[in-house]
Amino acid sequence: EVSQTKEVLKLNEDPRVHGVYLHLPPASLTSRVLNTLKPEKDMSSLSGVGPLTAALRMQNVVQSSSRWAKGQQYRPWTLRNLKLQPLSPVPSDIEISRAQTPKPVDQLAQEIGLLQEETEAYGRTKAKVRLSLLDRLREQPDGKYVLVAGITPTPLGEGKSTVVIGLVQALSAHLKLNSFACLRQPSQGPTFGVKGGAAGGGYAQVIPMEEFNLHLTGDIHAITAANNLVAAAIDARMLHEATQTDKALYSRLVPSVNGDRRFSPIQIARLRRLGISEIDPSALTPQEVSSFVRLDLDPAKVTWQRVVDTNDRFLRKITVGQASTEKGHVRETQFDIAVASEIMAILALADGLGDMKTRLGRMVVGSSRSGQPVTAEDLGVSGALAVLMKDAIKPTLMQTLEGSPVFVHAGPFANIAHGNSSVLADKLALKLVGEDGFVVTEAGFGADIGMEKFFNIKCRASGLRPNIVVLVATVRALKMHGGGPNVSAGSPLPREYIDENLSLVAKGCSSNLRKQIQIAHLFGVPVVVALNVFKTDTQAEINLVCQMAKESGASDAVPCHHWALGGRGSVELAQAVKQASSQPSHFQFLYSQETPIVEKIRMIAQKVYGADDIELSPEAKAKIDYYNQQGYGKLPICMAKTHLSLSHLPEKKGTPTGFTLPIRDIRASIGAGFIYPLVGTMSTMPGLPTRPCFYDIDLDPVTEEITGLF
Amino acid sequence: EVSQTKEVLKLNEDPRVHGVYLHLPPASLTSRVLNTLKPEKDMSSLSGVGPLTAALRMQNVVQSSSRWAKGQQYRPWTLRNLKLQPLSPVPSDIEISRAQTPKPVDQLAQEIGLLQEETEAYGRTKAKVRLSLLDRLREQPDGKYVLVAGITPTPLGEGKSTVVIGLVQALSAHLKLNSFACLRQPSQGPTFGVKGGAAGGGYAQVIPMEEFNLHLTGDIHAITAANNLVAAAIDARMLHEATQTDKALYSRLVPSVNGDRRFSPIQIARLRRLGISEIDPSALTPQEVSSFVRLDLDPAKVTWQRVVDTNDRFLRKITVGQASTEKGHVRETQFDIAVASEIMAILALADGLGDMKTRLGRMVVGSSRSGQPVTAEDLGVSGALAVLMKDAIKPTLMQTLEGSPVFVHAGPFANIAHGNSSVLADKLALKLVGEDGFVVTEAGFGADIGMEKFFNIKCRASGLRPNIVVLVATVRALKMHGGGPNVSAGSPLPREYIDENLSLVAKGCSSNLRKQIQIAHLFGVPVVVALNVFKTDTQAEINLVCQMAKESGASDAVPCHHWALGGRGSVELAQAVKQASSQPSHFQFLYSQETPIVEKIRMIAQKVYGADDIELSPEAKAKIDYYNQQGYGKLPICMAKTHLSLSHLPEKKGTPTGFTLPIRDIRASIGAGFIYPLVGTMSTMPGLPTRPCFYDIDLDPVTEEITGLF
Repeated sequence: EVSQTKEVLKLNEDPRVHGVYLHLPPASLTSRVLNTLKPEKDMSSLSGVGPLTAALRMQNVVQSSSRWAKGQQYRPWTLRNLKLQPLSPVPSDIEISRAQTPKPVDQLAQEIGLLQEETEAYGRTKAKVRLSLLDRLREQPDGKYVLVAGITPTPLGEGKSTVVIGLVQALSAHLKLNSFACLRQPSQGPTFGVKGGAAGGGYAQVIPMEEFNLHLTGDIHAITAANNLVAAAIDARMLHEATQTDKALYSRLVPSVNGDRRFSPIQIARLRRLGISEIDPSALTPQEVSSFVRLDLDPAKVTWQRVVDTNDRFLRKITVGQASTEKGHVRETQFDIAVASEIMAILALADGLGDMKTRLGRMVVGSSRSGQPVTAEDLGVSGALAVLMKDAIKPTLMQTLEGSPVFVHAGPFANIAHGNSSVLADKLALKLVGEDGFVVTEAGFGADIGMEKFFNIKCRASGLRPNIVVLVATVRALKMHGGGPNVSAGSPLPREYIDENLSLVAKGCSSNLRKQIQIAHLFGVPVVVALNVFKTDTQAEINLVCQMAKESGASDAVPCHHWALGGRGSVELAQAVKQASSQPSHFQFLYSQETPIVEKIRMIAQKVYGADDIELSPEAKAKIDYYNQQGYGKLPICMAKTHLSLSHLPEKKGTPTGFTLPIRDIRASIGAGFIYPLVGTMSTMPGLPTRPCFYDIDLDPVTEEITGLF
Repeated sequence: EVSQTKEVLKLNEDPRVHGVYLHLPPASLTSRVLNTLKPEKDMSSLSGVGPLTAALRMQNVVQSSSRWAKGQQYRPWTLRNLKLQPLSPVPSDIEISRAQTPKPVDQLAQEIGLLQEETEAYGRTKAKVRLSLLDRLREQPDGKYVLVAGITPTPLGEGKSTVVIGLVQALSAHLKLNSFACLRQPSQGPTFGVKGGAAGGGYAQVIPMEEFNLHLTGDIHAITAANNLVAAAIDARMLHEATQTDKALYSRLVPSVNGDRRFSPIQIARLRRLGISEIDPSALTPQEVSSFVRLDLDPAKVTWQRVVDTNDRFLRKITVGQASTEKGHVRETQFDIAVASEIMAILALADGLGDMKTRLGRMVVGSSRSGQPVTAEDLGVSGALAVLMKDAIKPTLMQTLEGSPVFVHAGPFANIAHGNSSVLADKLALKLVGEDGFVVTEAGFGADIGMEKFFNIKCRASGLRPNIVVLVATVRALKMHGGGPNVSAGSPLPREYIDENLSLVAKGCSSNLRKQIQIAHLFGVPVVVALNVFKTDTQAEINLVCQMAKESGASDAVPCHHWALGGRGSVELAQAVKQASSQPSHFQFLYSQETPIVEKIRMIAQKVYGADDIELSPEAKAKIDYYNQQGYGKLPICMAKTHLSLSHLPEKKGTPTGFTLPIRDIRASIGAGFIYPLVGTMSTMPGLPTRPCFYDIDLDPVTEEITGLF
């Protein structure tokens, strides 16, 4: 790079040179090289075109691709839209996905103003985007930031992801506004279990849907590898400490290599935390040696679990260490599904490589027999974790059925974690769309959980401020909140959900929908209600929802038809969003970091959930004291509550009142940076039913076509 | 595609058109479009260059990239070699790797004659190669097929991988011959444990070494996902069968969907195996229903294990199912390291997507209470496994430090599996190098294990015939085989290995080296000995090895210096290989498939290992009867024996004689297609030492540079 830069500097001083054509391998086309040339000289670059090179070299190239790409940021993209011709009845998701040919991802990247050096293709349809983009576009104003949240979920579904995708298809392909969807990466386990895919549905999808739903670009696999390296390090360390003297441990941990004995940087960090400033290994006192070599983890207080990205219910509770080589050091533990790993939450909240590495080192894996927290850095493993995660930190670029850009990045649990896609994907997208563009991102579960955490946890971490909330509702779900009968999978749908029933709709609107709108207003953010229309909905029902939503304070409320029609079916929503986002937003957090833990929990319970008060178990009280003592008191709160009700009781639909929220226990994800009170039991490992989805999933070895994914 | 093809057909008939310049997205540049044009018209293609397009369109393009790419196969490649300027002393592997800038992988792909549609980039330095290449080059004669094997390994190491890479660097960058290295993908676990990386070493490496050693293109992660889906399906199925009636199971396994009830294709396959020809679910007898719905797996006879790509010793023996949701169905089991999965062995032996899918379905996961084998297809999961493995089947293209092509693909265990890289990578490479080119592939462990399995298992599966064996030896390892003292990690090396000692060298040559040459000759393949030179080796020692190797029947024997010098240090070896491979090779298997299992084992023990005879345990005898009865008797044998001795006793160096090989037990990998007798205990899960490699592995968050990988 240095020599290339020097070459260019020479050309700057040569008045005969009006332009330069650089023929370099892409890896060398760094911004440093590109930026070296004076702006008045024209420049272009190209590599790897083989037989055409000779002809090209004779060209008098007159355009600067570097300046072109930079200028591009401030203008509407020239996005090539993919044409949709929706069929009726709507075919299966995989058929719709397969019938559309995605643009080559490098073409999409170019259309949205990414430089060649800023992307790393993974096949033809996925590319990772490098974080250096944030540096390049530092001065660029952000676009509008739109959060899609939902009313309280019911078994009937609301379709938040399809709204995100349909809205972006409408904004970009129909209103011709720069816009970006930011989605969570789904866990692979449920794809083969009950749930199926998560790439949207109908004519509002990310394509190719099988790439989205399978390995993607390997981020969850990287998390699994990193998570399980920590777990292996914990158990091996406990065994080694149990079977070796201080002296033996010390001579192995700080070995003499060719007569030279020194601490590694990660060991010096541990010494600092122990208050030992000595850096000569031979100068430590025996007591210092002992405190350095012994993490003294209490096997009963290890909180770190292993993970696997498979629905494997038999791993919910296991005993490890039963082979004779482990000398009787058996221990009860469990596997969680990979997306429940704290490392996933960190990926979603980190705002750069340095921040991610710091968070990884800070993760608390358990506590010592004397009650001190033991971190990943104490285990010596945090550098290796950062290495394993170095590519996972880059968001993955894909596209919708209509060719609009999508970032897929991170997918933390929405109960024990905060359930939002990554801060970095949102930041990159906000820069790429530019001042007049839109970034649509999604929060998991209902607005009481996903949106509350988006505001109080994600926005606090990112510093970003949302302009507007799109609240998704369906007539069916509103009917259930209005008192409609229960439904169960496999049984026919009760008539109430198929026939017009304005009374149930009205009750649903005045309870759950109104409450969720009020929650968004608590944070000072305007709301547009998106009614995701099903074919059984009547015009009167649709009109009623829209009218009552506006009466409840929504800036606007519109029906949308993206599932059946693609972006064209969400144009009205797009216009409403555009209109509402020009209103001022007065965003504010619900609580300040300084508020005591108990008060933070109480504020969420009362103001968001509508509880009378909270009730702390003795375990929860003890944990709060412990966390305060460890200096974790200023962390935000991540409630682990059922998503099926505003209360802690899943069967209470509508707007429950008159309840006290029980806090069973409290845990902490110190690396991710939040405390999570447990309201009830959270399953972190799904199971497989008698006939899992995988029975229908198949691959034709000749055409390479996949069937049975949905 | 159809419309593009029609356009081209019109141009064929227009006499004014002498050539065509196609400007299409890469996905449209299919061979059908490219092949439509008459050969007398010139054609070229290019996409995605943005601002240059207008200028290009005015060009009178005169070269056909399609014909160029095809014609290229029969000619020497025009490979751009990367210059090496070796330093002394030789820096660390990661420093050497980082100091070299790899060519963009798309440029490398083009140089070796791949069409743009045949590769899928994974970042800048890795690309998967599509199997459609085998169709396109069907008529192309294969290149020479070179196997690199080693003498019996010692703790001092021999450097087989560095020989493979150094040889290919010499053949391609210095002799200007088309040549390809085919390597195994290393397990990620040991990278963070004791062993460190596996991308070669010194100036004979695959670059970037960190990409090679970390996630690569996700193949091992895909294997882990597929393997663990089978495991989850097994335990969930046993639970569901234990807790449901035949009728309940049947109505769940074959549900009525909108009034329509039918078997899925995978269920029909199971019915066929049960001898039931009925395909109407309502017409099965209760007994047929029962045999269909009940796999009746015996929990004590489940042979399938879970896997994880981490050195996690506490998972060597575990108890699963201890949560209350699993209703007391606890079971003892274990995790293996991911590369020990049968799915890895299948990936290495499959010769296409169809073959892989068949093998995946055929995998036996345990047996029923009545002793019948239960397969992955019986579980209904084989289609999903093929879907999970659809990208893993494509070999990954990388490059050496000097810019020569490398395939990295599959890395099965060398004891419980066959320890060789993939059949598909070798086949693709043999077509790409063409008739006068060379493909250098590697076998794990010593020649008695890796090479024997290469011949008897891999070549039998692939139909490929090797031209020559390169047998790697070092002066130090020969001294140990000649009776030199034991060495242990951490202790200083005994003088015998540092000072000249011709007597030990001579004894090592006349024992282990001679025996391994004879083993290769058993199969009718000529041998070139590659002496991997260390700086302590004296000229007299080097000369002695080369002289004695030739006296023992080697076609040639040469010292090589690739570690310190790169390809330039292996030019002599490359010339010897070129020379020897022009000799006729009379390849033959050691045994025919029809030979009874016991006889196959005895032939390997006596002819290859030099045992007097074999001794079967009662368990082994019973298993042989069972396998014969199940029709597995014609499968080849994959011995699970220590690699540290030709015998079963690791401490016996040289050429042990007068021993009887004990066969403790016998297992089978029916999907991979071999039977593996256990000679001693094989560990399938490594552990972490007190100070694992990860203590030194770190990532600089600013420069993104990795340190501590070696």
